[in-house]
Amino acid sequence: MDALKARIKKDGKNLGNGILKVDGFINHQVDAALMDACGKEFARIFAEIGANKVLTAEISGIAPALTTAMHLNLPVVYARKHKPITMPDQVFLTLTPSHTKGCTVELIISPEYLSKKDKILIIDDFLATGATIQGLVRLAETAGAKVVAIGALIEKTFEGGRQALSHLGVPIESLARIRLMQDDQILFDDE
Amino acid sequence: MDALKARIKKDGKNLGNGILKVDGFINHQVDAALMDACGKEFARIFAEIGANKVLTAEISGIAPALTTAMHLNLPVVYARKHKPITMPDQVFLTLTPSHTKGCTVELIISPEYLSKKDKILIIDDFLATGATIQGLVRLAETAGAKVVAIGALIEKTFEGGRQALSHLGVPIESLARIRLMQDDQILFDDE
Repeated sequence: MDALKARIKKDGKNLGNGILKVDGFINHQVDAALMDACGKEFARIFAEIGANKVLTAEISGIAPALTTAMHLNLPVVYARKHKPITMPDQVFLTLTPSHTKGCTVELIISPEYLSKKDKILIIDDFLATGATIQGLVRLAETAGAKVVAIGALIEKTFEGGRQALSHLGVPIESLARIRLMQDDQILFDDE
Repeated sequence: MDALKARIKKDGKNLGNGILKVDGFINHQVDAALMDACGKEFARIFAEIGANKVLTAEISGIAPALTTAMHLNLPVVYARKHKPITMPDQVFLTLTPSHTKGCTVELIISPEYLSKKDKILIIDDFLATGATIQGLVRLAETAGAKVVAIGALIEKTFEGGRQALSHLGVPIESLARIRLMQDDQILFDDE
């Protein structure tokens, strides 16, 4: 998606070790209009996929998942990383390594909002190693739900996430695919 | 706002100790269409307030703040509770008691995205004691920014947040004002 790719070129920063800083428009300050446009694009791509629910992980998945859900007229569920007191004792929980934190985090979903009736569209900000999305897939499968498609704003193709998810046999779409980050250079797969 | 109040009546749960569970449409599963309508309503209310940025706190403030920012065509910044590695070492940080966690949490904003040029509209999911919003006000003031208005989806009028924020002398608007939660009964201020 050109608007997103242009913004990454302009404001994205390669911090080294495969870390792309997009805090100015996605992860801390959010460009609401851009997120809306990204959600609209995901809704276009996944219009016929038959999802009845969008699933993401807090925190930075919320913005793109919400705008996608708005344009598809679906609810969105975000997996929590800490169990709030409003959640029942019996939950779906999985562990996933955090790329940017260097530790393992929990992903938790209440059985109230995920069941075998659900056809899930997973949306997240990044597709890197695919670890977070694999965690969401495990939660969906544990609930008996079916994952029907996966979307990410930004894919780092050199980290293998797409391959790690390919066994699912579902469409995987990213709006910006980065093939190389070197010093100040960020290159997309079509350049 | 009638749609929000009707949904609270239908799906909100009084868990006791002043805790209102709205996990089915705001805090875990999000009704994207309802959040969009709430954002549109905030944008209508605050159309003339002169804000150039929306400010909220992760996690559950993100959805209403994002939809408000979309309809006002503004960026939104969400205060982080943990400093990510993408953030500079020098940050704005304040401590705030968490109503639902029974502990103190950090609210952190990068100086990259908050400055004395900013006129801030604060949006959050709840206005209860006002502690989180007061934390956001402190961060804005530390950055030299000016808070011009405050909006919350749900206000619990019996917890005194509005009084605690009144010294700011800015408009405070809530879309649903609850005056009483007792057993299965949730009463708004107009009933």
